[in-house]
Amino acid sequence: MSALLASELARIAQEIDARFDALLTPPDDSRRRLYEAMRHAAIGGGKRLRPLLTSASARLFAVDPECAIRAGLAIEAIHVYSLIHDDLPAMDDDDLRRGRPTVHRAYDEATAILAGDGFQALAFEIAASEATHPDPFVRSELVAALAAAAGPAGMVGGQAMDMAAEAGGEHDLDTVSRLQQLKTGALIGFSIEAGAILGRVPPEGRVKLRAYAHDLGLAFQIADDLLDAEGDPAAMGKAAGKDDAAGKATFVGLLGVDRARAQARLLSQQAIDHLGNFGREADLLRDIAAYVVDRDR
Amino acid sequence: MSALLASELARIAQEIDARFDALLTPPDDSRRRLYEAMRHAAIGGGKRLRPLLTSASARLFAVDPECAIRAGLAIEAIHVYSLIHDDLPAMDDDDLRRGRPTVHRAYDEATAILAGDGFQALAFEIAASEATHPDPFVRSELVAALAAAAGPAGMVGGQAMDMAAEAGGEHDLDTVSRLQQLKTGALIGFSIEAGAILGRVPPEGRVKLRAYAHDLGLAFQIADDLLDAEGDPAAMGKAAGKDDAAGKATFVGLLGVDRARAQARLLSQQAIDHLGNFGREADLLRDIAAYVVDRDR
Repeated sequence: MSALLASELARIAQEIDARFDALLTPPDDSRRRLYEAMRHAAIGGGKRLRPLLTSASARLFAVDPECAIRAGLAIEAIHVYSLIHDDLPAMDDDDLRRGRPTVHRAYDEATAILAGDGFQALAFEIAASEATHPDPFVRSELVAALAAAAGPAGMVGGQAMDMAAEAGGEHDLDTVSRLQQLKTGALIGFSIEAGAILGRVPPEGRVKLRAYAHDLGLAFQIADDLLDAEGDPAAMGKAAGKDDAAGKATFVGLLGVDRARAQARLLSQQAIDHLGNFGREADLLRDIAAYVVDRDR
Repeated sequence: MSALLASELARIAQEIDARFDALLTPPDDSRRRLYEAMRHAAIGGGKRLRPLLTSASARLFAVDPECAIRAGLAIEAIHVYSLIHDDLPAMDDDDLRRGRPTVHRAYDEATAILAGDGFQALAFEIAASEATHPDPFVRSELVAALAAAAGPAGMVGGQAMDMAAEAGGEHDLDTVSRLQQLKTGALIGFSIEAGAILGRVPPEGRVKLRAYAHDLGLAFQIADDLLDAEGDPAAMGKAAGKDDAAGKATFVGLLGVDRARAQARLLSQQAIDHLGNFGREADLLRDIAAYVVDRDR
């Protein structure tokens, strides 16, 4: 990992923790348990890849770093909600997340459902707030694009396809690519595009950035599948081999470990190549692309 | 029910159904089940009280009726998501809703979780869309206020307090009032305030409307408690007497049926009185206040 990436990863993680800490002060009434469950899920331990991507892409367009952190916080709130709900007994039924008990294990199932629901609302409240961007047009574009990436045409739709595949649907490469593009690619893509939205770059100026986002998202997902198949559970803070046991549709299952790894590296290089016209301000995005395929968690 | 109210209730219900129908066209892939579950929950049978309130309050400020319908649709999407999640086995564990099987009974629990999550994202996508209001400042204010009403400081927080009360917490009148203000009052209040937001009325011009919203919300909740205690399950399309059986903190449990009914009528009259300075354009809001305490479902 480059020194630049290491320092930005640490800075963003600290910023995101501090802001969730401030937003989630438990009130002095019976909502305390809900807020404590939300703090359990959101503070400490996350990689914060999505907020990092937003801050990294915001550098390309000279965006106020505070705006990028706030937009990244909104995206991370969506990510945290999706993890809480994915871990539920009716979904993936996981006991561990980031090395700690999942929310429904540490609290209870109803609290986990509500905590996830609360994070989704919080995400849009943050995105729409004046503190995130002074221009209301930018704020409403952020909200609309984030909602599209998170909803039935994005992340939630991908999750539904994943369940269908587990229940015995198709597992070919096209289906898995489409499923992963929705399930994780849409939100990762939005994390990167958010930098351009904050910088008021019109859609026609986002072509290279979108190409980067597409390849990075796929590379990230293949690397995730490889970690699940081969990773060290202690480093990951969750169980390994679960995808295979659950009959999940993964790239590793379709391509095998060696071809999957080669494909992830190819996509990472392609992602970097899309940034050719940018200067040093794109170094962080380049370093992230190199890192996601070689991480250990 | 007045002729005006009857015709507006029918018109809004038809509009909301038609728009959910258009938004939720099942895609030709394995997300079909998710979309069908969302259609099952959202189309047909709802009273559409919240969109009606938005359209009724929008009349006070000469708002384009199309903007009011779209904002009401966003609010109804939040309401539908909250019903799907409240009915889950880990929450109220209900089998019937609007006379039909609940989503987790008609489909499965994972699909119900995802359908609720999808409706929450859809709500914010609708609210932030240019089709809802041409002014991006209005759109971002709508989103921020809707998110606050729906999140941990609003509806989700009220739901958490309700669970705590069921699990043996306090049941005094102050606690129940606060709980209900968050659980149902916040979203009903926003439904009414949305008309003023769409009409670009600054907060200082919303005092009377907020007072109406406060009293109407409480009257509505007491009437709901009365229906649960005494109502006809066939008319309601769900089981009656469930609150009492679950040990829920309700106004009827605290005040008894007669005092609760008197209190609901008093609040309804107070709500109407707050509209004294408005003319005929407020008749629909007046009719709604009279209706909510005398409905049979």
